[in-house]
Amino acid sequence: MTTDHVIVTDVERADAATIGALAVHGVATVHEAMGRTGLVGPSLRPIQEGARIAGSAVTVLCWPGDNLMIHAAVEQCRPGDILVVTTASPSLDGSFGELFATALQHRGVLGLVTTGGVRDVVDLRAMGFHVWAGAVNAQGTVKVTAGSVNVPITVGGTIVRAGDIIVADDDGVLCVPRGDADAVLAASDARVEREAASRAAYQSGQLSLDRNNLRGVLADLGVRYIPQTEYDSV
Amino acid sequence: MTTDHVIVTDVERADAATIGALAVHGVATVHEAMGRTGLVGPSLRPIQEGARIAGSAVTVLCWPGDNLMIHAAVEQCRPGDILVVTTASPSLDGSFGELFATALQHRGVLGLVTTGGVRDVVDLRAMGFHVWAGAVNAQGTVKVTAGSVNVPITVGGTIVRAGDIIVADDDGVLCVPRGDADAVLAASDARVEREAASRAAYQSGQLSLDRNNLRGVLADLGVRYIPQTEYDSV
Amino acid sequence: MTTDHVIVTDVERADAATIGALAVHGVATVHEAMGRTGLVGPSLRPIQEGARIAGSAVTVLCWPGDNLMIHAAVEQCRPGDILVVTTASPSLDGSFGELFATALQHRGVLGLVTTGGVRDVVDLRAMGFHVWAGAVNAQGTVKVTAGSVNVPITVGGTIVRAGDIIVADDDGVLCVPRGDADAVLAASDARVEREAASRAAYQSGQLSLDRNNLRGVLADLGVRYIPQTEYDSV
Amino acid sequence: MTTDHVIVTDVERADAATIGALAVHGVATVHEAMGRTGLVGPSLRPIQEGARIAGSAVTVLCWPGDNLMIHAAVEQCRPGDILVVTTASPSLDGSFGELFATALQHRGVLGLVTTGGVRDVVDLRAMGFHVWAGAVNAQGTVKVTAGSVNVPITVGGTIVRAGDIIVADDDGVLCVPRGDADAVLAASDARVEREAASRAAYQSGQLSLDRNNLRGVLADLGVRYIPQTEYDSV
Amino acid sequence: MTTDHVIVTDVERADAATIGALAVHGVATVHEAMGRTGLVGPSLRPIQEGARIAGSAVTVLCWPGDNLMIHAAVEQCRPGDILVVTTASPSLDGSFGELFATALQHRGVLGLVTTGGVRDVVDLRAMGFHVWAGAVNAQGTVKVTAGSVNVPITVGGTIVRAGDIIVADDDGVLCVPRGDADAVLAASDARVEREAASRAAYQSGQLSLDRNNLRGVLADLGVRYIPQTEYDSV
Amino acid sequence: MTTDHVIVTDVERADAATIGALAVHGVATVHEAMGRTGLVGPSLRPIQEGARIAGSAVTVLCWPGDNLMIHAAVEQCRPGDILVVTTASPSLDGSFGELFATALQHRGVLGLVTTGGVRDVVDLRAMGFHVWAGAVNAQGTVKVTAGSVNVPITVGGTIVRAGDIIVADDDGVLCVPRGDADAVLAASDARVEREAASRAAYQSGQLSLDRNNLRGVLADLGVRYIPQTEYDSV
Repeated sequence: MTTDHVIVTDVERADAATIGALAVHGVATVHEAMGRTGLVGPSLRPIQEGARIAGSAVTVLCWPGDNLMIHAAVEQCRPGDILVVTTASPSLDGSFGELFATALQHRGVLGLVTTGGVRDVVDLRAMGFHVWAGAVNAQGTVKVTAGSVNVPITVGGTIVRAGDIIVADDDGVLCVPRGDADAVLAASDARVEREAASRAAYQSGQLSLDRNNLRGVLADLGVRYIPQTEYDSV
Repeated sequence: MTTDHVIVTDVERADAATIGALAVHGVATVHEAMGRTGLVGPSLRPIQEGARIAGSAVTVLCWPGDNLMIHAAVEQCRPGDILVVTTASPSLDGSFGELFATALQHRGVLGLVTTGGVRDVVDLRAMGFHVWAGAVNAQGTVKVTAGSVNVPITVGGTIVRAGDIIVADDDGVLCVPRGDADAVLAASDARVEREAASRAAYQSGQLSLDRNNLRGVLADLGVRYIPQTEYDSV
Repeated sequence: MTTDHVIVTDVERADAATIGALAVHGVATVHEAMGRTGLVGPSLRPIQEGARIAGSAVTVLCWPGDNLMIHAAVEQCRPGDILVVTTASPSLDGSFGELFATALQHRGVLGLVTTGGVRDVVDLRAMGFHVWAGAVNAQGTVKVTAGSVNVPITVGGTIVRAGDIIVADDDGVLCVPRGDADAVLAASDARVEREAASRAAYQSGQLSLDRNNLRGVLADLGVRYIPQTEYDSV
Repeated sequence: MTTDHVIVTDVERADAATIGALAVHGVATVHEAMGRTGLVGPSLRPIQEGARIAGSAVTVLCWPGDNLMIHAAVEQCRPGDILVVTTASPSLDGSFGELFATALQHRGVLGLVTTGGVRDVVDLRAMGFHVWAGAVNAQGTVKVTAGSVNVPITVGGTIVRAGDIIVADDDGVLCVPRGDADAVLAASDARVEREAASRAAYQSGQLSLDRNNLRGVLADLGVRYIPQTEYDSV
Repeated sequence: MTTDHVIVTDVERADAATIGALAVHGVATVHEAMGRTGLVGPSLRPIQEGARIAGSAVTVLCWPGDNLMIHAAVEQCRPGDILVVTTASPSLDGSFGELFATALQHRGVLGLVTTGGVRDVVDLRAMGFHVWAGAVNAQGTVKVTAGSVNVPITVGGTIVRAGDIIVADDDGVLCVPRGDADAVLAASDARVEREAASRAAYQSGQLSLDRNNLRGVLADLGVRYIPQTEYDSV
Repeated sequence: MTTDHVIVTDVERADAATIGALAVHGVATVHEAMGRTGLVGPSLRPIQEGARIAGSAVTVLCWPGDNLMIHAAVEQCRPGDILVVTTASPSLDGSFGELFATALQHRGVLGLVTTGGVRDVVDLRAMGFHVWAGAVNAQGTVKVTAGSVNVPITVGGTIVRAGDIIVADDDGVLCVPRGDADAVLAASDARVEREAASRAAYQSGQLSLDRNNLRGVLADLGVRYIPQTEYDSV
């Protein structure tokens, strides 16, 4: 049954160069290039400002109030990974702090994405260990209940599988399915080029109404223009 | 019917000097001077720290997941305006980003107030385009559904009409009805003067209990003073 | 009846040296040393970054939309105190601002913890008056309804009594019962020592799985290791 | 200034026959006929099941934790009215109970719509006084702070003016601007006719894909049909 | 330290006749008689309609996702008790179901109040075992982590001690401190008498504005009466 | 790419007898038999009381404010199916009502599970078309934006694939992966038998502390028994 508790090992990662190129593009661009999918939603926020990273997901499914499986997950991490943690039912307990970050940084892990809480945020910022979390919360946890590592989990409604690529910056957190990485990168590259042209046009005063041929859309939808004096007199 | 989709043009703005004077006072002071009305509530937060602006509202009513009407609204903006966006039903999608800010900054728009989400926040901060939003959210939107521009909308329970004055700073976002601007400014000036006197009094040790004659209020309400040792023994 | 409105005076405080030592340890460490109790939860957030304080609680119970009892509480404050405010029913109104902070700073009060809202946050940050609050909210309040000062209140599910020790930093807010202070401090000291040893071990590559003897726990719980290729083929 | 506290009297109501006809149609139908506007949102829920009413709005703006203005509003009510209550800042206190309902029922008032709380719900259900509320909450209120009656208020993001028509049933609460009533009724009638035809068609097995010509829409959007065996093999 | 895990036995209960009399009055009346204190707030809702009970609190503090201490609490229950459960950090897991209710009903327990979730609600309703809960949630729990029984806990911001009186009905859940029971009952009796007189007055058409002398309050607050035609012309 | 918009056809369903047997067990039992997994969480609630169904999932991914893909999904439904709907970003709009239910009932569909809103709830209850939804909300939607049918979606953090078995009753909604159905049914059968024995034991007064050998667990965790008089004197 898929409901057994397992620690999946030897997870395949995506190509490092592809991951690096996605990090340069950032969350908003890659999300658009993916057909507007893959975001974990606005409830996970960065604890630092200005960080932008991408890495391979090591997924962790914990019991609420328990971080046993994070302990188990450390061993599965490799340089360039990002730990992605959630709980079997919603919990904002502070299951992660500076000691975990110390151990993970020793293994080359780039950061943490968690639907739960984190603590020791002053230390985490000072260490440059980047975190996106559901809360800052000192509430401690126990380590007595089983869970899984590297099984598919859902984070904010998005499915994350071990080895998928996580992109995270101040705009949020995105999951790129490993098998889509190359196509997504190509689409991101194309989008950046289009946006550069649009930026230049807008800087010189062109309207997006005209650039995107939206005047016809408005007319087809029956949207009418009316001066304020006339509108207020209705 | 008031339910038609329209873009209201030629909106009347308040006097620029009045708007500027309200910006100096800031949200908390002007709100008090308005009889404690006009706030959009604490759910809209600034994406930057330390900004304080005031401008004329250009209002936008979008469909959730759709930013077509923001495209339409750009053309209606003038220097000194603030774009105020909401959706027909609640949505935190990131309907606004750096390309819109580029186009609006070209037209002299000061900032954005939105019940929805924004993205490209690193760029927005770098551009000095100030934003108060319901969320930071990379989630992209489409542009296919009708809405309205410059009709009355509600933001956090406050009614905002095109041409009303928006004041925004780290304390939140306030809407001053255009017709009330002069009276509100006068009341704000008076309040600032009173507060300066209170500040000086408190700095020299006076209690607000005495300064505001509140000891009698407490006595009338039956509030009793009791030492801890006596209270604990009850 | 315990439901009368009272202002409790002459509250006993804990030893200043103990309070100071708890401040050095910070919220996460002291919380763990208390058996993972005492936190007010993640909904109260600091309005500044990097502050860490500890002080004696002066508790305030206000009516929603009313700050009369904060006015009454100022007089009960002494140097080293922290004001702790809540409302009879949930309210995020901005019942506290720069004028209160001015009066409290004159009396040597270190900061504010409130389930409600604060305003004038730019001024509060500039003054170095530290605040943990349920919201930043300019919404003003009246001062006409009775409440109490220095009675037991609950903040985020934690009971706070006058004279209890409040510890607050970027990780949150903690209440240490006055009578437990010495034992909690001793436990905190011991914990810091243990954590230092763990930190050194993790920095040199030891796994917490091994250091905490958790491999046996995993085995007892039936957690199995399985390579990804095998897992995916099930 | 619009921020003064007033009790507006002699409010004009819509035609009783029109109101009655809108009640027959119900919330979902009239909302669609209004171009999908006017709803107060899903956070207000009925305390009873199966009620469907329509009436003229008497609006009340209270201070949080205070129901003074509901006392003032009773006198402004006439047979066929619906009381619509909100607070200056969010509050779920139980500002309304059976004694108010008794007084209002004496005056022919049909029910209550409130963003706040209600209590005595067993009595209210027994009396047949219909209520849509933000919460069931016994929390009592005081009556000491000013507000207004029959000024424009916002309820769940919808503007309600005195004399507007409120329609409420198990699907929610809708506000029909008084001036739009006749046009909205006509559009509702037309919609009911169309829906009857659709219902008959669906009962006989027609697909809405065909009835609404949506197959072309799907094709234009690039939506592809693919068997599961093929999809799973990608 | 107060943070140890204990099961407090031999808890003193209030007089059964007093408890029974409070049950007759119900939540809203007793709450008012307590000076508007003691409610656990609107987030706990009954899973049945029309129940009204009162009993002595047996309090339970569980770890999130764990119901070990409910197992321990059953033994501490006596006829006429009500089980009151919360968790060390917020959790809506379904830690209680029909098997617990079976065991408790055998011991004469009247019902359950929990900040968490319950399941088997069809069975619970059929058994007549009354429940007020934070959620209906089938999510199961483990039984491996320590907590306490009959220590003071907080439920929705209200402190509940073992042996306090819980009153619960469709309006919510109330905690009456054991030592206040007689005074609260007397105040409740007096209140019911006053309300009966008010009810009769309102049924015969008197206004609460007059009965409570509120016209003067409105005038003192500067609330003005103004006809709609005049108001709209401002 | 997995981000294309597709309508997956010819979905394999589980064995009807297995599905029927799971419906008899109900959500709480099957969830426990699955190792406490598979629930969609407490935010989806039934609009009716007492329904218990199980069926094969037809999944729908819509754009917020848009129900085009529900129109497309109807054609993919077979007798015994349950429609499972979510949106690309959170939305409680009322994308489903009585006309859809009419069309689906014609095809033998048992009910609807949706993270969004439903309307016409009086009609839906009268028709016996069972619904579990995120909200009751009359808010109408458009049908202009692409989505997918029968792709994997997440509902409340649980992954639902086309053809998985949905079990729903008053305790919530559960997804049983199709491939696990037989094993889950066997585990459910075993659990029901164990629970019957426990029920009989509890009805005769046995304590779960003894039946489950939990006294030793408490002792190992250091939980101490202490009389109230002694506890209060600490």
